[in-house]
Amino acid sequence: MKEILLIGAGRSTYSLIKYLSKNAVQHDWKITIADRIITDLKSRFDADSRIEIIEFDVNNQNQRETCIKKSNIVISMLPAHMHIGVAKDCIRFKKHMVTASYISDEMKALFDDAVDAGITIINEIGVDPGIDHLSAMKVIDEIRDAGGEITGFETFTGGLVAPESDDNPWNYKFTWNPRNVVLAGHGGAVKFIQEGTYKYIPYHKLFRRTEIIDIEGHGKFEGYANRDSLKYRSIYGLNDIKTMFRGTLRKPGFCRAWDAFVQLGATDDSYTIANSENLTFRGFINLFLPYNPTDSVELKFRHYLNLAHDEISLFEKLEWLDIFKEIPIGLKNATPAQILQLILERKWSLSEQDKDMIVMWHKFVYTTNEGKEKELHSSMVLKGKSTLETAMAMTVGLPVGISTKLLLEGKINEPGVHIPIKKDIYTLILKELEENGIQFVEREIS
Amino acid sequence: MKEILLIGAGRSTYSLIKYLSKNAVQHDWKITIADRIITDLKSRFDADSRIEIIEFDVNNQNQRETCIKKSNIVISMLPAHMHIGVAKDCIRFKKHMVTASYISDEMKALFDDAVDAGITIINEIGVDPGIDHLSAMKVIDEIRDAGGEITGFETFTGGLVAPESDDNPWNYKFTWNPRNVVLAGHGGAVKFIQEGTYKYIPYHKLFRRTEIIDIEGHGKFEGYANRDSLKYRSIYGLNDIKTMFRGTLRKPGFCRAWDAFVQLGATDDSYTIANSENLTFRGFINLFLPYNPTDSVELKFRHYLNLAHDEISLFEKLEWLDIFKEIPIGLKNATPAQILQLILERKWSLSEQDKDMIVMWHKFVYTTNEGKEKELHSSMVLKGKSTLETAMAMTVGLPVGISTKLLLEGKINEPGVHIPIKKDIYTLILKELEENGIQFVEREIS
Repeated sequence: MKEILLIGAGRSTYSLIKYLSKNAVQHDWKITIADRIITDLKSRFDADSRIEIIEFDVNNQNQRETCIKKSNIVISMLPAHMHIGVAKDCIRFKKHMVTASYISDEMKALFDDAVDAGITIINEIGVDPGIDHLSAMKVIDEIRDAGGEITGFETFTGGLVAPESDDNPWNYKFTWNPRNVVLAGHGGAVKFIQEGTYKYIPYHKLFRRTEIIDIEGHGKFEGYANRDSLKYRSIYGLNDIKTMFRGTLRKPGFCRAWDAFVQLGATDDSYTIANSENLTFRGFINLFLPYNPTDSVELKFRHYLNLAHDEISLFEKLEWLDIFKEIPIGLKNATPAQILQLILERKWSLSEQDKDMIVMWHKFVYTTNEGKEKELHSSMVLKGKSTLETAMAMTVGLPVGISTKLLLEGKINEPGVHIPIKKDIYTLILKELEENGIQFVEREIS
Repeated sequence: MKEILLIGAGRSTYSLIKYLSKNAVQHDWKITIADRIITDLKSRFDADSRIEIIEFDVNNQNQRETCIKKSNIVISMLPAHMHIGVAKDCIRFKKHMVTASYISDEMKALFDDAVDAGITIINEIGVDPGIDHLSAMKVIDEIRDAGGEITGFETFTGGLVAPESDDNPWNYKFTWNPRNVVLAGHGGAVKFIQEGTYKYIPYHKLFRRTEIIDIEGHGKFEGYANRDSLKYRSIYGLNDIKTMFRGTLRKPGFCRAWDAFVQLGATDDSYTIANSENLTFRGFINLFLPYNPTDSVELKFRHYLNLAHDEISLFEKLEWLDIFKEIPIGLKNATPAQILQLILERKWSLSEQDKDMIVMWHKFVYTTNEGKEKELHSSMVLKGKSTLETAMAMTVGLPVGISTKLLLEGKINEPGVHIPIKKDIYTLILKELEENGIQFVEREIS
């Protein structure tokens, strides 16, 4: 019997646990789910005799070591900064490890230790990063194997609301961590390269530098740039590529309206607002507008953002959030970003009936070995099945689960610290994702 | 004989040294000027028998201690972050100390130690901060002593070029550290209070939220907000004030044109540009503009900043800086801010003939004890005399020199760590500043 230890089992791990449970008998697995709070987990998975659920404190060294020692593989779904301690234990006790998070420099530095221990640590095997690596590298390798040269690569992913649940003027709801959505784009200028020219976008221009993307059968989306696209040149082995761009998808119109909050300064998380607990939504917006003894907040807002009086589509999005109403905030010592999150959560939270949707789109521009210019689009759209089996949970959980299985079966057997960009890895995972309904559609463009 | 140790003697200390030298015989002072590089100092001041110039390394603990031990007072004109080590030595060896820099939290924390040692450490006794404290507190105390209540205080200072040397479309030259000018406004949102309402301005809106100020006899200026005006409420004892605003002065039109660099992202100092050494000025500007296979950089620039084709005044300021020319940059691993500084230094440096100018302006709004609403403006304009005796050097050096004298004479005698806001201190310093031509004009407004 093989023992799998899953550390951290929030809502996003539902599909992962289902996948592990479904495969447990056939592969003779025992699955230990370790989390700080286990009430919900108990009610959902306790009936499965292959699953044991334990209350777990990652800072309790003794418990952590005991659990890792007796398992064959460890899946860490903890917040990203907490993986490193687990990884060091995994090396010490010679256990494989899987995480869905971006690989940190600290994690990369464990490469030699992992090789010495004979174990494999796979990172970035969720949706983005993860499925984007797998599906992009498949096409990149195919083009290169056929003697082609890739000159441009653009890739976009979005966590959105499914069309049947899309009932608000933003065409958006929180399908993932709301705080990350509010802070998207923070932490430094955006960097990419386009037609051989480096490009840099400051945060306050990010949501006005969008691109419209039309995905056959799914309509139009708009994409804004992710922070550092440049580093993916070396990761994907595309060092001389002329265009490299990674971005995030929203429905058209979202970014321009979101930019209103950016322009106000309402997404700032670096200072706290004086007397924030006594403010209203309207008072919050007024903090960022010039003082005027007679003009209304609405008028000042329109003026500040250069909105003509007949600009309706943007203004109605903001009005719909109730930002001009005297609704109390009641949050003490709050940053602008925290208050904005509170305002948005009233309106952008998923209801029990709502379904989410993951959209991924790649564009490859390349020259064939006959010197022909070609373009290939590859896209994947997945809708959630239920409140628990969301598209986000499936696209994160399934590749994590599949790579866990492949590691236990010895089908992935390459000690070290990795991200999933090698052919022998992505081929197997993409195949099983397809069997689970996560499928890319490729389309040659003339 | 009293010994004065001056640590750090860059160009800005010329007037300070002249002041000390002028007073040395009468007060029986010996002045030791300690700096890393002393060639210029030797040629300027070596003839004065009261002055000794020594090569000095502030990190050489032995030398630092020896010098401080044998002096009666220490003036630190080092970069702000280096004062603290000197201050600790001053406490250890019981010597008074004077700095012109903003008081740091670390420095404040030395209050009790300074009291125990029986010494006085005066900070913020330059021009801004410094002369602004003295002159503001004088009026604030006068109004309060007459039973009035201050409801609004705005204060602006600018280091500018004198009208007779003002020969460029920006009406601006570097009269102080160019790097600080490029980075002005960085480091967090601007905070102030206006008519009882808190106001916050994000960096990317700072240079569009300006105020026009007319100073009798000197024409119009424009002011943008300094970072944190709120903390001056408690410092000046104006806790219930409705309006508190501190700002920086430029000539009208400067801020809107400067905002072009802010909007591009060209003032960012947080990352380095790829291949910066091979860029030209034009290529640098193009980094921040969207890719387009046919449009010129000029057209993209106008479009990006929403400038109509007949918007001339702003565009000519930028063109005059040669930013659209193919001039090589030649700086390796440079940040945008470093490259921008290089571009500006070609054009904004003072020539040998140029004179600078310091402008300070306060506005007090108050209610008299008879319930009358009144407004009082207080302003000071000082032009430099020469390349060495600049307005900046005089307004920084004289108050530092005067407070050094007052400490040595025992006329300032209040152990602890202070900024100059007390009546017995500012009265004496303002009086001697006036004798040296630094004079405020007060004007009641009906």
